[in-house]
Order: sequence, then structure tokens, then C-alpha cells
Amino acid sequence: MTGGYDTDIVTRLETNLDDLSPEITGAVMEKLLAAGALDVWFTPIQMKKNRPAVQLSLLCDEARAEALADILFTETSAFGLRVEKVARLKLERRFETVATEFGEITVKLGLKQGRVIQTAPEFESCRAASERTGQPLRAIYAAALAAYAAQHAQS
Amino acid sequence: MTGGYDTDIVTRLETNLDDLSPEITGAVMEKLLAAGALDVWFTPIQMKKNRPAVQLSLLCDEARAEALADILFTETSAFGLRVEKVARLKLERRFETVATEFGEITVKLGLKQGRVIQTAPEFESCRAASERTGQPLRAIYAAALAAYAAQHAQS
Amino acid sequence: MTGGYDTDIVTRLETNLDDLSPEITGAVMEKLLAAGALDVWFTPIQMKKNRPAVQLSLLCDEARAEALADILFTETSAFGLRVEKVARLKLERRFETVATEFGEITVKLGLKQGRVIQTAPEFESCRAASERTGQPLRAIYAAALAAYAAQHAQS
Amino acid sequence: MTGGYDTDIVTRLETNLDDLSPEITGAVMEKLLAAGALDVWFTPIQMKKNRPAVQLSLLCDEARAEALADILFTETSAFGLRVEKVARLKLERRFETVATEFGEITVKLGLKQGRVIQTAPEFESCRAASERTGQPLRAIYAAALAAYAAQHAQS
Amino acid sequence: MTGGYDTDIVTRLETNLDDLSPEITGAVMEKLLAAGALDVWFTPIQMKKNRPAVQLSLLCDEARAEALADILFTETSAFGLRVEKVARLKLERRFETVATEFGEITVKLGLKQGRVIQTAPEFESCRAASERTGQPLRAIYAAALAAYAAQHAQS
Amino acid sequence: MTGGYDTDIVTRLETNLDDLSPEITGAVMEKLLAAGALDVWFTPIQMKKNRPAVQLSLLCDEARAEALADILFTETSAFGLRVEKVARLKLERRFETVATEFGEITVKLGLKQGRVIQTAPEFESCRAASERTGQPLRAIYAAALAAYAAQHAQS
Repeated sequence: MTGGYDTDIVTRLETNLDDLSPEITGAVMEKLLAAGALDVWFTPIQMKKNRPAVQLSLLCDEARAEALADILFTETSAFGLRVEKVARLKLERRFETVATEFGEITVKLGLKQGRVIQTAPEFESCRAASERTGQPLRAIYAAALAAYAAQHAQS
Repeated sequence: MTGGYDTDIVTRLETNLDDLSPEITGAVMEKLLAAGALDVWFTPIQMKKNRPAVQLSLLCDEARAEALADILFTETSAFGLRVEKVARLKLERRFETVATEFGEITVKLGLKQGRVIQTAPEFESCRAASERTGQPLRAIYAAALAAYAAQHAQS
Repeated sequence: MTGGYDTDIVTRLETNLDDLSPEITGAVMEKLLAAGALDVWFTPIQMKKNRPAVQLSLLCDEARAEALADILFTETSAFGLRVEKVARLKLERRFETVATEFGEITVKLGLKQGRVIQTAPEFESCRAASERTGQPLRAIYAAALAAYAAQHAQS
Repeated sequence: MTGGYDTDIVTRLETNLDDLSPEITGAVMEKLLAAGALDVWFTPIQMKKNRPAVQLSLLCDEARAEALADILFTETSAFGLRVEKVARLKLERRFETVATEFGEITVKLGLKQGRVIQTAPEFESCRAASERTGQPLRAIYAAALAAYAAQHAQS
Repeated sequence: MTGGYDTDIVTRLETNLDDLSPEITGAVMEKLLAAGALDVWFTPIQMKKNRPAVQLSLLCDEARAEALADILFTETSAFGLRVEKVARLKLERRFETVATEFGEITVKLGLKQGRVIQTAPEFESCRAASERTGQPLRAIYAAALAAYAAQHAQS
Repeated sequence: MTGGYDTDIVTRLETNLDDLSPEITGAVMEKLLAAGALDVWFTPIQMKKNRPAVQLSLLCDEARAEALADILFTETSAFGLRVEKVARLKLERRFETVATEFGEITVKLGLKQGRVIQTAPEFESCRAASERTGQPLRAIYAAALAAYAAQHAQS
């Protein structure tokens, strides 16, 4: 099944952490992202002996998997990692800049067969505008979406 | 491994949502079920930049996967979906009606090699009886289980 | 507001743990219960710097609060505890024994103004019967509820 | 502290459920809302003996507390409820209708000392428009926010 | 009850967010901490209409409460905030520096009536050492604890 | 990808439970571990109709999968189980005993290509020492890590 979407295959690494301090777990997230993980997330889980534990999951390109496994074995308390290949359906991504009353904002577009079906103001671009202007982040997002809509209504 | 159970293969679609309002996420669940998803569920996850995000997961027949992917890309903020085939072991299902003091209730039976090993009053049938009689749902469930047990003790 | 229910006041202690291994958090639960906590529970929370942390909550009689605070400060990584008085509405509790095909089971009853409005098979009593007979715990629960219902239908 | 906000006092009822089927817990939410609860929510918690339990919380006016406590004691497995008075800061609420390409949408406004500081399209109004037009809920929300902004820019 | 501990009273602000994007919720955490919140945390909750929502909680000195409420009403989708005063038991805090093979590390000590009962290497101090030396954070923590123990065994 | 790690293949069984009492779910965890599951964990999930449900996951050797599936179908409310093969990367494990002021403690070592990269005091060994001496579990862990470090610094 592709349904007109882009596809790729990524590697998912996963491990259950029941003897690591959350302070350290939090710091590992940044290390993994810096080392090329595409995404890293934590899921609260409940393990044996009443342990309120955490499942760490990450997605990466296969070429990065070994380096990321090394980080997990070195920086966390893991003695084992689950490794799975996962197929993805993806929208083609494109970036566009829109002019708003708060300055220029980058908008990420998601396309299916050349047609835009997703529009998402870029977080860091909005955050920069929010800091620059002192306006709430939500106002920046709304302005970016409105500016994008206005621009494409005209065309 | 089948161990005497029925088996099938389903498709699991999964995506991490870190920029969608929970109001909309909640509404998408219904849309996906209406469009033929076998099951839809949310898992609270924690993503980068302190985001309290949600993993949306669904199971479906392969034939429905493309239509459900279209809904996810249209109705949520997803730019990508993970797609996996998953084998299932299943009990054979059968439905039976039992007579209770609260009226007739449907009971779902799960069978392994012809033998009933699961008995579950149907939620909607119990809810209807609860609304009809004003009795607590728990009382309806208990009555349905008791009626099923009594009926099969006699036979 | 009492609405015909029993009432009491308990103390709730609460702390957010972001630098304790779940192995140790799990073990603390047992220690707190052994030292007289009425209830202890963990809530998954998300703290600053991407930490997948845990909120530990307990209820106790005021007379036990100091001893339990000592355990928390000694056995966990807490530097502070929140202390609140909380009013409770409660059902009057009574225990009854019912005879089932799996042996005698204790049932906990909850009464409002002398009338039974809750019926709950006691977990440990059911577990003992399950281990004694090799039958699933769910079957024991169902049998206990059915026996209680039958016994009170006759009377 | 009021800081120019409206204030009121509500009652919070809370109970930990470790022996209720999620099917029934889910149905109780609707019953509580129908009986006048202002808000009802579930928090995943972890209780003794490895139980993946649920904390049910609700807010209500004091005048509704007894009726809601009766529902909780009747419809759930609770033997006790925690009862707390809680002060709230609130925005003054006002509703306005805006015209969009998808029809009229109701927008909820939040005011502090007469000034609008929150703008939220009403969920049910957006859902109705989404069903009427077949357009994604997110598009309706965006259109409502844009229409509100345009209308107030003109004035 | 003080039990020989320091005590204070803080204000807890809490709100349930069911219509805010997690991207924005995450960014608000930093803003609240920068504005003087003592602690900010998110709890995954489940609200009506199948919404996977978030409870935002913060602790602050009463003097900061109004400014933090303003941020919450401006930066999130909240129309209301719960405000409670909460008593705390606290250890007296002291900081000490220890020499390790990875450089000097700050250790936070918690004292009850002048006696040290908690020892926690400071996260930022350990992170700096980890970045400086390239060694895992866990090794830094262990070295700091060992150095502290050795130093105090000698004295 | 093996990257110098040991590898194996395990079976993961998973099911979503929306109609089982947490009391019973908790008891099933022990039964599954006793029957040879390598790991069992619960994840809080949110299913349709506002149900605060639980995902039960377990890992096992393929040879144990059928017996564990039988337990799940008998002891829980599952009508279906997801079955997946999952590859794992693992550290080689070795156990060593260290002498501490609290008695001998077992330490679990994780090795990559013969080199120790993980050191974890064994929970049950620490717990026994904690009970024997009345000292906090955290102190035992710290002593075991320090003893291991000292012993290997000398050699």
C-alpha cells in the first residue's frame, strides 16, 4: 500500500527503563537527537514490582542505528534493545515563507501527488517571532496560517 | 504458533501527534472507526521540547489501510505514518442472548476449538438495558453473567 | 455535604520524583503501605528538561503522617513534600462470607444508611481460592458475586 | 489573589478505581456530565499489587455534589470519595457568531476586565460545519479564527 | 505536623488543556519557569469526547501567582484556573563542591535538624562535566556520590 | 546491524484490555512472569467510548508463546492477541559479588565484546541487604556501585 504517498523504511529502537533516574533519561533524549535520531519519545509504562518505568523509543535511518545503540547502552541502564524495521508513508515536504504582522514565518507544507494537504507553521520560526515581538506563540501560529491562506486565495 | 486459535493478519498504522489540539484528536477517533478501523487508541507520550504528545494507533484490514491513511493525513497534523503488518491470534466469536430481570442481553462468547473460554456481556446491549431500567450498568453486567452461567449449568 | 455518608479527614502527602530509579520507587510503595499508609499511588508526569517523572501520592491518618514523611525523605530523592488535609465521604464497610463451588470467599459490602450499595469480592480471598483450585481469578470473582446475589435473593 | 479575573468556588470529587472495568468507567463519564458535572476527567495511575488503575476527578457546583456522589457510589466500585473545595480564576465568557465559507460558526471569547484575551471556536459548532460540508475539522477551526480576526480588524 | 522539617506555603495553579497543541504546551513550560514558577509539570489526562488532554500544574510563591496566571491565560487555551494553597515540608538545602576525576561537581544536600539525609549531585553541574569530558552522565553522578562519601568518611 | 552486540529473536504478545478490572490485570502480571515471560508491562491507553484502558505487552521465547497466550485468553478479557517477532541487541551478562559495609551484594555486569559497559546492583540482592540492615535501598545501591568501582580501580 502506498496510495500515492512517499515511502521509506526506518529502524525503530526500543527499550524499557526501570532503573534509570528521569534526570538522566531526559538528558539522553537530547543526545540521541543530536546524534541523528529522527524522533525520540518516552511512554510511561508499568513494570513488575510496582515500578513506574519508561519505554524509550526512537526512529532512525538504518545507517545511524549502530551509533544510537551505542549511546543507549552507554548512557542508559539498558541491557537490551528491541530493533525493528518499520515502513512509513510520508507526505512530500516543502517550505514556504509568509509575511505576517510579526515578521516572516516559515510554513511547512505536506504534499500528496503535488497537492498541498498539510500546512504547519514551523515551531522554531514561530518561537523566534514570539521572542522578537513578545506576542503569544498562539497568535504567531494563527497569523502564519492566515497569511498562508490569504496568499494562496489570491493566486 | 497458532495453538488452536484462529489467526489473521491486520495492518497497524501509527503516528506521533505533537501539534494537534486534543479536541480534534478526539473527533478523529470517531471518524476512523466510522471508516472501518477495527480499533483505534491513544497513548500518552512525551516528545522533544517538553511536548506532552499523543501516539495514535489503529488496526485495520489491509484493504482499508489506504482510506484510513487518507483520513489521518487530512484530519490530523501527521506528515508521516508508520505501517506494519501484525499477526493476531483470535478466539472464534459467537453471540448468545440471555434473559435477565432487566430484559434480554447479548453475550459475546469466545471459543477455542469449539469450547467457550470467554464470556463478555455486550456493552451496547447492557447500556440499552441500563437506560431502559435505570439500573446501574454494573448490575446489568452481573445479571447477564449470572444468567449465562445459570443457563449453561442447567444444560 | 455528607448526604448520609460516613465522613473522615485524611492527610495527603505528595511529591514529584525526577531523580529516583523506578526500581527504588516501586520498593518504596511497599514500605509506605507497611508503615500504615491507607493508599499509595504513582502518576506519570512530565517535568522540565524532558524528564519522564513520577508523582507519588499517599493518604494516611494524620497520626501516621510524620512517620511516613520520614520514610519519604529517607527512601526517596524528595527534598520537599506537599501536605494537604482532605475530607472523604465513605460507605460503611461490612464483610460477609459466601459459599461458592471454589470454597468460601469474603465479600466486602459498602452501605449507605444501612443499605448495601456496593458488593466487592475481596481480592486476597479470591486469589487464595484461585491458587487453591487453579481456576482463573475472574471465575472466582463471578462465582462470589453470584453466590452473594443468590443468598440475598432467597432471604 | 484575583488579578482582575472572575472567581468562584467549586467542589472537586476524586476517587481511585482499581476494580472497575474501563467499559463501565467510560460510561460513567457521560452519566456524570449529564447529571451536571462541570468537568470529568481520568488520570492513569499505578496502585499497589501492580494494578494499572484510574483516578476519576470531577468538578461541580456544591449544590450538585451530593447527587454526583450518589452516582459515583452507585455506578462505580468506589468505597470512598475525596471532597475538596477549590477556588477558580476565570475569564468572563461571551459567544459570538462569525460567517465563514463553511457557514456560521460560534466562537467562544474569554475576557479579562472587558478585553478579549481568548478566542476559541466552539467544538460542536465546528463539528456540525465539518459534517455539513465534509471538510476537515481543522479547516473549520482555521476559518473561524480567520473570520473572527478579519471581522475585528475591520472594526 | 512539622516533624522537625522546614515548612512553607505555596500556591498551586492547575488547568486542564483539551484544545492546545502540545508544541505550544511545551513552550509554555519554559515561559512559566522563566517567570518564577518553582515547578511546572504535565499529567496526561483523558477528558470528555475521547480527548487525550493534559493537566498543567505549577507551584509558585503567592507573590508570583498573578503574573503566572496572566501567562497561562495569555499563552494557553485556558478559560479557568484552579488555585490552591498547599503546605510543604522541606529539607534545609545546602550545596557542597566535591572533587572528582571529572572535575569539581556541586552536590545538593538535604538536612533535617542539621543532619544530612539527602545527597544529590546537581544536574547542571554533572551535565557540564559530562560535556567537558565526554563521559556518560551516569558515570559523573556515580563519581560525585563516591567523592562525597569518601570525603565525609575521612572526616 | 549487530555492532558487536549479542542478538536474539523474541516473541512479543500484545493486547488492549478495555473490560478487565485492574485488580485482575495486576494479578495476571505475576502469573505471566511465573510462566516464563521474559518481561511484562502495562501501558495506559485511551480507547473508544472514553475508556481508560490498558495495553498489556510481554516478551517471551517463541517456545513459551503458546502457553502464555493460553494464560492471556483464560485470565484476561482478551478476544485477540497481536503476535510479533522482534530482534534484540543485548549485552553479554555476568554477575559479580562485591563486599560492602552492608554485606555482600550481587552486581550485574553488561559486556560488549568482553568489556564491561554496564554495572547494575541486583535489585533483590540490595533489597535483602536493606531488610537485613534497615538501611535505605538507595544507600545499598550506592555502596554496591562504590565497592565495585573500588575493587576494579585496584586491579
